[in-house]
Amino acid sequence: MGRFRGLFHAVMFGLLAMAVLGAPAVAADDPINVIKYRQKVMSAVGAHMGSIGAVLKGEVSFTGHVAGHARALQATSMMAADMFPPGSGAGDTRAMAKIWENWAEFEKAIKAFQVATGALVEAADSDDMAAVSAAMGNLGNACGGCHKPFRKPKE
Amino acid sequence: MGRFRGLFHAVMFGLLAMAVLGAPAVAADDPINVIKYRQKVMSAVGAHMGSIGAVLKGEVSFTGHVAGHARALQATSMMAADMFPPGSGAGDTRAMAKIWENWAEFEKAIKAFQVATGALVEAADSDDMAAVSAAMGNLGNACGGCHKPFRKPKE
Repeated sequence: MGRFRGLFHAVMFGLLAMAVLGAPAVAADDPINVIKYRQKVMSAVGAHMGSIGAVLKGEVSFTGHVAGHARALQATSMMAADMFPPGSGAGDTRAMAKIWENWAEFEKAIKAFQVATGALVEAADSDDMAAVSAAMGNLGNACGGCHKPFRKPKE
Repeated sequence: MGRFRGLFHAVMFGLLAMAVLGAPAVAADDPINVIKYRQKVMSAVGAHMGSIGAVLKGEVSFTGHVAGHARALQATSMMAADMFPPGSGAGDTRAMAKIWENWAEFEKAIKAFQVATGALVEAADSDDMAAVSAAMGNLGNACGGCHKPFRKPKE
């Protein structure tokens, strides 16, 4: 009977924990798909950054496009934390286990990404390309704030 | 004297034409750079479309990201016409000469791209994934509206 009581307690504790913590509404996404998705979003980030870079270098004269790219970058910065659910470090990804071991640090780095894109939007709206250039420098640093500590080097 | 008068008239006519038509404020961008830029923007378009597609297919559960991707797509649709200045059909590009020969048609197709992304933003804001799916279908058609008539097939 002692053994059954132990099992009963374990089950009850599990149910209670689910009730308190909230059971997930949907099954967790397959890490393979999460990894593909975040690589897509990161490729959008690279494309928008590169587009603004081309304007700043004077390769193209589309200064009027900068605000659009900046807002797109800001949108991706708001997605970034979601894109790293626990378990999505296994597979074809350069994301390091450190992300989930130091989640608070990682979140801080993502917050810096959001602050930097917000500042970029402001600079872009002012239409002052020197301000955009400075904001892009800060954004580049914010990229590094995640990529340096939390991303494996390319193989 | 007659010859000088002729020259004088020619110069005056030229100055007048510049004043009326407006001299370009900057030299035209190098077509090589324009082509690179628009390929960057198009890669952002593909990344945002693919990201929404992954949500609609249920591969990832980030329905809250759709509005951000939709707004990014709308921003790119507003850039599209600028990205095809005359002369940017020569080089490493699949853009066809037809674009500049039928500019009015091309602009109409770009307008359809803008309308479709506008509708996608609206659908995304309603958070109704069935509406998003329908809007994505229409956007896919709008993509085809440029890509089928105005883009060379892949070699």
